Amino acid sequence: MQFSELIIKLGSAVKASSLGADNDLNPILTGLAPIDAATSGTISYIEGDKFAKFVSNTAASALILPMNEAIQAQAIDRGIAWIAASEPRLLFAQVIKLFYQPFRLPVGIHPSAIVEPGVELGDDVSIGAHVVIQPGVKIGNGVTIHPNVVIYPDVQIGDRTILHANCTIHERVRLGADCVIHSGAAIGSEGFGFVPTATGWFKMEQAGYTVLEDGVEIGCNSSVDRPAVGETRIGRDTKLDNLVHVGHGCQIGANCALAAQVGLAGGVKVGNQVLLAGQVGVANQVTIGDRAIASSKTGIHSNVDPGEIVSGYPAVSHKLWLKTAAIVNRLPEMYQFFKQNKQN
Amino acid sequence: MQFSELIIKLGSAVKASSLGADNDLNPILTGLAPIDAATSGTISYIEGDKFAKFVSNTAASALILPMNEAIQAQAIDRGIAWIAASEPRLLFAQVIKLFYQPFRLPVGIHPSAIVEPGVELGDDVSIGAHVVIQPGVKIGNGVTIHPNVVIYPDVQIGDRTILHANCTIHERVRLGADCVIHSGAAIGSEGFGFVPTATGWFKMEQAGYTVLEDGVEIGCNSSVDRPAVGETRIGRDTKLDNLVHVGHGCQIGANCALAAQVGLAGGVKVGNQVLLAGQVGVANQVTIGDRAIASSKTGIHSNVDPGEIVSGYPAVSHKLWLKTAAIVNRLPEMYQFFKQNKQN
Amino acid sequence: MQFSELIIKLGSAVKASSLGADNDLNPILTGLAPIDAATSGTISYIEGDKFAKFVSNTAASALILPMNEAIQAQAIDRGIAWIAASEPRLLFAQVIKLFYQPFRLPVGIHPSAIVEPGVELGDDVSIGAHVVIQPGVKIGNGVTIHPNVVIYPDVQIGDRTILHANCTIHERVRLGADCVIHSGAAIGSEGFGFVPTATGWFKMEQAGYTVLEDGVEIGCNSSVDRPAVGETRIGRDTKLDNLVHVGHGCQIGANCALAAQVGLAGGVKVGNQVLLAGQVGVANQVTIGDRAIASSKTGIHSNVDPGEIVSGYPAVSHKLWLKTAAIVNRLPEMYQFFKQNKQN
Repeated sequence: MQFSELIIKLGSAVKASSLGADNDLNPILTGLAPIDAATSGTISYIEGDKFAKFVSNTAASALILPMNEAIQAQAIDRGIAWIAASEPRLLFAQVIKLFYQPFRLPVGIHPSAIVEPGVELGDDVSIGAHVVIQPGVKIGNGVTIHPNVVIYPDVQIGDRTILHANCTIHERVRLGADCVIHSGAAIGSEGFGFVPTATGWFKMEQAGYTVLEDGVEIGCNSSVDRPAVGETRIGRDTKLDNLVHVGHGCQIGANCALAAQVGLAGGVKVGNQVLLAGQVGVANQVTIGDRAIASSKTGIHSNVDPGEIVSGYPAVSHKLWLKTAAIVNRLPEMYQFFKQNKQN
Repeated sequence: MQFSELIIKLGSAVKASSLGADNDLNPILTGLAPIDAATSGTISYIEGDKFAKFVSNTAASALILPMNEAIQAQAIDRGIAWIAASEPRLLFAQVIKLFYQPFRLPVGIHPSAIVEPGVELGDDVSIGAHVVIQPGVKIGNGVTIHPNVVIYPDVQIGDRTILHANCTIHERVRLGADCVIHSGAAIGSEGFGFVPTATGWFKMEQAGYTVLEDGVEIGCNSSVDRPAVGETRIGRDTKLDNLVHVGHGCQIGANCALAAQVGLAGGVKVGNQVLLAGQVGVANQVTIGDRAIASSKTGIHSNVDPGEIVSGYPAVSHKLWLKTAAIVNRLPEMYQFFKQNKQN
Repeated sequence: MQFSELIIKLGSAVKASSLGADNDLNPILTGLAPIDAATSGTISYIEGDKFAKFVSNTAASALILPMNEAIQAQAIDRGIAWIAASEPRLLFAQVIKLFYQPFRLPVGIHPSAIVEPGVELGDDVSIGAHVVIQPGVKIGNGVTIHPNVVIYPDVQIGDRTILHANCTIHERVRLGADCVIHSGAAIGSEGFGFVPTATGWFKMEQAGYTVLEDGVEIGCNSSVDRPAVGETRIGRDTKLDNLVHVGHGCQIGANCALAAQVGLAGGVKVGNQVLLAGQVGVANQVTIGDRAIASSKTGIHSNVDPGEIVSGYPAVSHKLWLKTAAIVNRLPEMYQFFKQNKQN
């Protein structure tokens, strides 16, 4: 694709480009490359503050830049075409879409798929080899179900949702439109409900529903459990990374991001636009307010206010944690002092 | 189901009910609902100390209550039928079973399943679509194997055990009766055994057995590894939540509960009735005594006595951890004091 | 197998044996057993310093011992045959291989497998039931693919690599020779890339490649993500245990071992021969030097030098962590002292 064609395709996403300064700088671009492995013919992107350093020696033919005239001038000096926007990372994501689209199954039902009687299928669905769909499932238009997915009875799947290979959708699940469920994830699996009795555990059947609103994405091998009554619910456009556990009855708001290996115990309430970094754990019934952030490995045992940033185990404000984490390393000196003075 | 019929079905599980006080209060119940979403015609349950608050405004037609006459009277005043027991959560679980049974596959072998020669099948087994069972597997009576499960050779499965979709049972596994293996779990997978040598890792083949006694339940995407020699063993009625890792050669006792994302390294010994909360980690060869409890995220590097409650990383007694976790937050003041006084 | 035959088969791996001292001590060995469950006819192994204690009472007919003449003499006194090497654990692994080989599928393509047109297959491949291989996949010689594995398009798999049941290999993956991918693992799944915008998350397509060099092993239900551009790469002979997460764009060196439930965020660089114990977490873009070690549950937020041993959260040197972890438990006394003295 010629550089000028790329600009046309990106439309209003490009706020400035080298074409204004040098119309002859119009390379043919064959693909994307990371900045440190870019070769001639590729377009590349530089994350964060490192732009200046890399512009001086990259072999890329084109760059995605921030709105910084000095860096842009430097690129032109080196004969590198550029496009720019105030959010270069977003522009980068838009460029990727022009060069690459992930594999999509062809429309149609593979002859080896088992679609039981009583399944409602929308238009233009793609159902891969060895998929199994039990009775009483409703599937919207344009849905893609990759090979070896299993769908239990009484499931509804919204338009254009994608189920990747080897994931499992259990009974009483409602998936919205434009959701993506990655490989190995289990949605609507039985919540961990066992009541202790004198003769051992009594299993509490999980008779509730699991609801994922539109645009929810669930990472590989994550699990979202079905509750005993009521709903487990994940709000619109919330994204979960790989190996995340969402316990029965959790209520997660919209536009959140939960990084890999996060675990939510039962009945946790998470607001909107909450960010939980990797390996965060949240205890039973805790409430986390809108726009709160927890840094990686935080252990949250009590409620977090909206907008709060927490760290540590047990979680405290991130500011306090930074202070105490530094002082903990002075404990040997402090203890020495304590030992010398405690008797005086 | 009419309220009076529910009471008959529950039998001795109901210790008291509103029928004694008001025989006309006999609503028709159509299902269960959580207390804050209950509508007319539903029966609901209130966890813990919040009963009084919710009884005053729920729309539920019936409630499961504790043996508390004041609360029971309040329910009748509001025209709400009730049943009660000293353990209302257990009664709640019993009520759910009357309204809901999870999906069971029909008895029989789906024509797309591959059952290799030399497999012994009990009576009334349910084998779903695209299941693969390798030679030398023995399957008991009433076993349910959901679609896309794979069973390696030399596996024995006890009566009534349920294998959910997309789980994998590896060679040399013995599953007891009444076990449940959830979606994506891997049982009897190769333990992580690599011996360092001058030329790299030498793989230690895992020639042992993996034994799950009767009534064991393994959560979604959990893994229970096969050892080099001897057994990995999980005792009767022990329950594992999702994404739990059990290393090769672990010995777990009876009636334990391991919450989500717990990890046991190799050769860990866990007694009976042990509770490990979410994201707990246990180091190689550690022994944990009967009835011990570890709170969430605890990192256990050394043995835990029977009945002990531990927290923190490295684990200490829960009482000590509560104290030190509170004092850690005073470290900035303490450090200030230390700096001012250390030279004096 | 007779003891003398075992020695012949082990060849130069055996540095000394009881045959020199007593040629009549030549038992027939039927298998391996752990030392505390060994019966007559088995050969057993004792880990670490416990040899002397167990030699005195085991029922094993043969033992794998260290190069320690006192212990060897004790074994002969008890009528137990032995073989010895300076690294008995390695010898143990070599003995296991003589008694046990894991299940291998027969060579050939199961008739229920779906191999799409445009797949290149090497010689002597084993493709199990219900495997699905999309177009544009190249598979080397002697590759084993267990049942219900799914391989997306544009994947290359090196000679003798083994894919266990229910794992998923996504597009743009290159697996080397002699790799093992365990059940449920997802290789080349989409990296977690979402750019925040005023109207919500914008999905960044993951257009890069995922490369596993020769001899890499990935545990059950682990995930290795595909990056937006460039590569995620795992170096030669590196071994990952179960439930490990490797984020998009990570570069892991050769001969590392990552224990269960380790999580690497995006763009992490790990050197050669690095050991990360269970549940370690590593933040975005961190670099870990060659031969570094992190103990279990360590949270690594900043770079780790080559050879460094780190612990704690946030990670510090293991030595400092041992000191501070001990002193933390004296905080109640220290705080008492602080309270009494701060006003003076």
